[in-house]
Amino acid sequence: MIILGLDPGTATTGVGIIQVLGNQFRPINYGIISTPADLAMEKRLVMIYEQITEIIETYRPDQVAIEKLFFNQNITTGITVGQARGVLLLACAQKDLPIGEYTPLEVKQALVGYGRAEKKQIQHMVKTFLGLKEIPKPDDAADALAIAICHAHYYQTKTRSRLS
Amino acid sequence: MIILGLDPGTATTGVGIIQVLGNQFRPINYGIISTPADLAMEKRLVMIYEQITEIIETYRPDQVAIEKLFFNQNITTGITVGQARGVLLLACAQKDLPIGEYTPLEVKQALVGYGRAEKKQIQHMVKTFLGLKEIPKPDDAADALAIAICHAHYYQTKTRSRLS
Repeated sequence: MIILGLDPGTATTGVGIIQVLGNQFRPINYGIISTPADLAMEKRLVMIYEQITEIIETYRPDQVAIEKLFFNQNITTGITVGQARGVLLLACAQKDLPIGEYTPLEVKQALVGYGRAEKKQIQHMVKTFLGLKEIPKPDDAADALAIAICHAHYYQTKTRSRLS
Repeated sequence: MIILGLDPGTATTGVGIIQVLGNQFRPINYGIISTPADLAMEKRLVMIYEQITEIIETYRPDQVAIEKLFFNQNITTGITVGQARGVLLLACAQKDLPIGEYTPLEVKQALVGYGRAEKKQIQHMVKTFLGLKEIPKPDDAADALAIAICHAHYYQTKTRSRLS
């Protein structure tokens, strides 16, 4: 099973693609979709849409996992990230991909087993789970991989409990 | 010139299309794009995207005017509306339409000349400007028409000052 993890943002959207084989995780690719700050917002959204559509067509994921937004401070950022997230959800739904949504807390619990885990701990677990030599860069790509791993975790737990 | 006014929302997006001929405004069509609450968010976004694309192809507007979000209370609503707004901006940008963005304050000032105008006053001015017999229903459609009229107002002012 191939999982596409997404950490949405207008300036930078983290993208992480992993393959799950039983209990094994394999990194397929990861990186970011970035858009120039001086471009009009609607044109940045077109860039995000076109790039994510191309990524889906290239890697043909079976499932998508995306960060569930949870802001409690900057509402303007919330609206901007919401716009990018809307475009990502649209592109995935147009390809009929099942979408799982996870809060940062759920990602932390799935990877470290502890909801207050620090960013460094998450990144370390991403590296370990995927058998990487170094922590994936940039941070948004590592976050997207973490979300993909989190989805695999919940998905396997659900499947297992259904079978038992 | 044909202007498409949009009042974004996931449950209901107001749509208002007007034609501007000199100082005259003519209503072409107005209504809402609504999506069922029990449908998955990503599927609702696909519905919004498909319907707005169809509206653009049917009415071939020259310009788009959309409400600039400005929330200071419910951030969850902000994110949800942001997602719908992102999809609307995407569909308009894919058709290379110029997009104007206006805050509720700017809309009020353009229509009533008073930033603290009440909803009823705005709706009354929409009816008057467009020569309608009644206030357009539902409210979201009236709001979308108000945004379109606001855009025509700012657009004409800009054009006039450039010519003088």
